[in-house]
Amino acid sequence: MFRANLTACADAVQDHLNAQLNGYGDTPVVQAMRYTLQGGKRMRAFLVMESARLFDVPHDRSIWPATGIEAIHAYSLVHDDLPCMDDDDLRRGRPTLHKKWDEATAVLAGDALQTFGYELTLSPKTGDAEVRAHLALALAQAAGAQGMVLGQALDIAAETATAPLTLDEITELQQGKTGALISYSARAGAIMAKADDRPLADYARAVGLAFQIADDILDIEGDPEKAGKRLNKDEAAGKATFVSLLGMDTAKHRAKSLIQDACDAISQYGPKAENLRDLANFVISRDS
Amino acid sequence: MFRANLTACADAVQDHLNAQLNGYGDTPVVQAMRYTLQGGKRMRAFLVMESARLFDVPHDRSIWPATGIEAIHAYSLVHDDLPCMDDDDLRRGRPTLHKKWDEATAVLAGDALQTFGYELTLSPKTGDAEVRAHLALALAQAAGAQGMVLGQALDIAAETATAPLTLDEITELQQGKTGALISYSARAGAIMAKADDRPLADYARAVGLAFQIADDILDIEGDPEKAGKRLNKDEAAGKATFVSLLGMDTAKHRAKSLIQDACDAISQYGPKAENLRDLANFVISRDS
Repeated sequence: MFRANLTACADAVQDHLNAQLNGYGDTPVVQAMRYTLQGGKRMRAFLVMESARLFDVPHDRSIWPATGIEAIHAYSLVHDDLPCMDDDDLRRGRPTLHKKWDEATAVLAGDALQTFGYELTLSPKTGDAEVRAHLALALAQAAGAQGMVLGQALDIAAETATAPLTLDEITELQQGKTGALISYSARAGAIMAKADDRPLADYARAVGLAFQIADDILDIEGDPEKAGKRLNKDEAAGKATFVSLLGMDTAKHRAKSLIQDACDAISQYGPKAENLRDLANFVISRDS
Repeated sequence: MFRANLTACADAVQDHLNAQLNGYGDTPVVQAMRYTLQGGKRMRAFLVMESARLFDVPHDRSIWPATGIEAIHAYSLVHDDLPCMDDDDLRRGRPTLHKKWDEATAVLAGDALQTFGYELTLSPKTGDAEVRAHLALALAQAAGAQGMVLGQALDIAAETATAPLTLDEITELQQGKTGALISYSARAGAIMAKADDRPLADYARAVGLAFQIADDILDIEGDPEKAGKRLNKDEAAGKATFVSLLGMDTAKHRAKSLIQDACDAISQYGPKAENLRDLANFVISRDS
């Protein structure tokens, strides 16, 4: 049931992104934006739409910030894959953008995807001005130099550091690099409903950390074909990960206990939060 | 008098940007953001603050979107200078960001500067939620794949095109690459005051085009030391420019007549618009 719900959300997100990119013309940059916006689990969009559903915010409002966060996520992947960053050739089983086009197109398409994320989020169809301004500001705070980009900067710094990162440092890195957007996505529904977003922030903190631990586990135990990307990167680069620091068994145990924390944080929402509980469990059981 | 006003605005913008970047920590990415946000004429910020003054919007509100647009402009310069784009070593008389740091830091700092631009614009101190949501959406529309990035994409495409661009194509390119942000900046005051932004849009269209024509003239007649950047780039690359298409005399005449159009468009604002008229004249008389 959960898999079907996630797929239905991904399909709705894809349709909406395609429709919104129509009328943007057909320059190579827009073609590259379309290419990048194909596929993916759409976990962040699902978080937006499911947290919105807790407060009865309708689908045709929440689809706007849901697609907005996917555009922001897509921009970060495109720039992260660049030769001067992670230098990856493969993403979701397909050539990365700078391999299929070129670096200039990848820089520009990433830039335009970030802008597109704000444009979607700020659509008048998202809600009243208070909701739109609040969402967009929360998104900027999550994406910027105190959120996602901070995490990426710490990640780059770690590559040339003399000592491997400690558990605290890896946790800070993760909270920026993947945690900040996950937190924004989970809080988005409460922001749209002008409700208290703290329970969802607690949920997201645990899910985000579990997600990163699961990623580190997948990097070692995963199947590259299913993952659609290069694996064993961190191990090969001698980078500290949750697995290298905690050991595989403790890492798996820690991920499970975080999922319990996440489910506890949203217990007040009852049966309506079932999809969010299922998502938390999915995060540590996925194979890609 | 005008020069003093422009300098006073630039100083206020610099102080505000420095103050807002405090507390962002001191990672290389934030150091690079600070470096990039030093200097510049601050013409876009001046447009925001002077258009706001027409409607008696106070300085301590307009400084937020004024610094926001300068952050967006700065991001576009950082990414434009990258080796895979224009590959420039010098900007405002100093090494470009990827020369002083490295490409990864330049990509990330540019990304974070774009985010920072939205964060500043969406500050609760800018105005009520309606104003902030309207401004940020207008900014995204101006900066994205139908605005500035479209212009940059057309510029890249022109480099590999078999025939030089026509006057219409160069005008479209300019309206995206520099015109869209200039238009947003000039309209920002009216948006903040919830007033009709059409006279300022007309003003900006003429000023933006005159600005690009003046840039093309400077690229040939300018002093590289005063300009603080490489000149004769377009001529060396065999690119069509307003000067190559119109001839130098006609280009200068056209720029002057556009400035008259710009001043006519804002005649209704009387003496309050004196700085905007002066700015229009400055655009075609500057030496950098």
